Amino acid sequence: MTAQTGTTRRRLFDATMRLARGTGLAGVTVDDIAAEAGVAKGTVYYNFGSKDGLVEALLRYGVADLGSRMQEAIDEAEDATAGLAALVDAALEFVERYPGFSQILVSELWRTPGRWAETLAPLRRDILAILEGQLERVAATGRFPAGVPVRTASAALFGTLLVSALDWLVFEPDRRREDVRDSILTLLAARAGTD
Amino acid sequence: MTAQTGTTRRRLFDATMRLARGTGLAGVTVDDIAAEAGVAKGTVYYNFGSKDGLVEALLRYGVADLGSRMQEAIDEAEDATAGLAALVDAALEFVERYPGFSQILVSELWRTPGRWAETLAPLRRDILAILEGQLERVAATGRFPAGVPVRTASAALFGTLLVSALDWLVFEPDRRREDVRDSILTLLAARAGTD
Repeated sequence: MTAQTGTTRRRLFDATMRLARGTGLAGVTVDDIAAEAGVAKGTVYYNFGSKDGLVEALLRYGVADLGSRMQEAIDEAEDATAGLAALVDAALEFVERYPGFSQILVSELWRTPGRWAETLAPLRRDILAILEGQLERVAATGRFPAGVPVRTASAALFGTLLVSALDWLVFEPDRRREDVRDSILTLLAARAGTD
Repeated sequence: MTAQTGTTRRRLFDATMRLARGTGLAGVTVDDIAAEAGVAKGTVYYNFGSKDGLVEALLRYGVADLGSRMQEAIDEAEDATAGLAALVDAALEFVERYPGFSQILVSELWRTPGRWAETLAPLRRDILAILEGQLERVAATGRFPAGVPVRTASAALFGTLLVSALDWLVFEPDRRREDVRDSILTLLAARAGTD
């Protein structure tokens, strides 16, 4: 991918996220996307083949980006508990930076029958694997409440991160990210050992 | 409202929920709704004035129903902790019964700019008031972790309930509702006092 192609794809992603935030993916057309991105309609087809091709590439790109930000946050942390805090913070930062993409995820992840269910199911598993690994490391330090299977906890954590972050941006934009992060961590009882 | 009108409205609500589950509210037309409900298009206009009128009535009806089921569950419970468990259970039962409506809520609640933001904001506050009241009662028994403002907790709880329930229905339909409820309660650390 040349730099030029990369820029065009990025502009088309950005345009799709802006448009889908208000109406949902189903309501967005190739015409809308091309106009919003300021490119010819043929550019969309040239780069992605179709609207579906564009959306699929966007979902893969966005979730992979979220995943690598979370993984990086974990890798840089001192220990398991700090890693969980850093992971939550990275997820909140991602939603703050890409509210349109996050809104799309929340809208489409649990849609059934949904046009993007097949694309999203494995992407969801990638994220859950990262969360699960980290929760297991926290559990190994004894700082996780007994009786919660880590797999269940990771699925609930993913959903809670997304909706808590969106709720913050939409309804309580004046709160600091650190406050939202601390609320989530306290609620999750996962920082029990740090009290 | 006569019984006949009530039945027609109910059928139009059901049709809208089924259709919107897969594509989102923006993609559903009055033609689709009338066809799915097996009524004439004029019936939609006669009962609700427009698609927007129908959707607004549906959102109000559905959220009020969710709220009264949660309130009833609380009122019937023995104490604050049991009330929280009953409330979570009532919310899960609601999502299990109305997955289409719940999907609509999750899709639309944090959409901005969104067509239903103005309708949904006060409805969200009604639900948060119920959750907040119950979390305050739990907090008064000392069974809530220190440092979590009840208002923040109630917003996070609402989101967590919705997405955890949808995640259960879509990705882990074999789990029992009681298991999902207990996972949520443990994760929320709100049953600390019951260990």
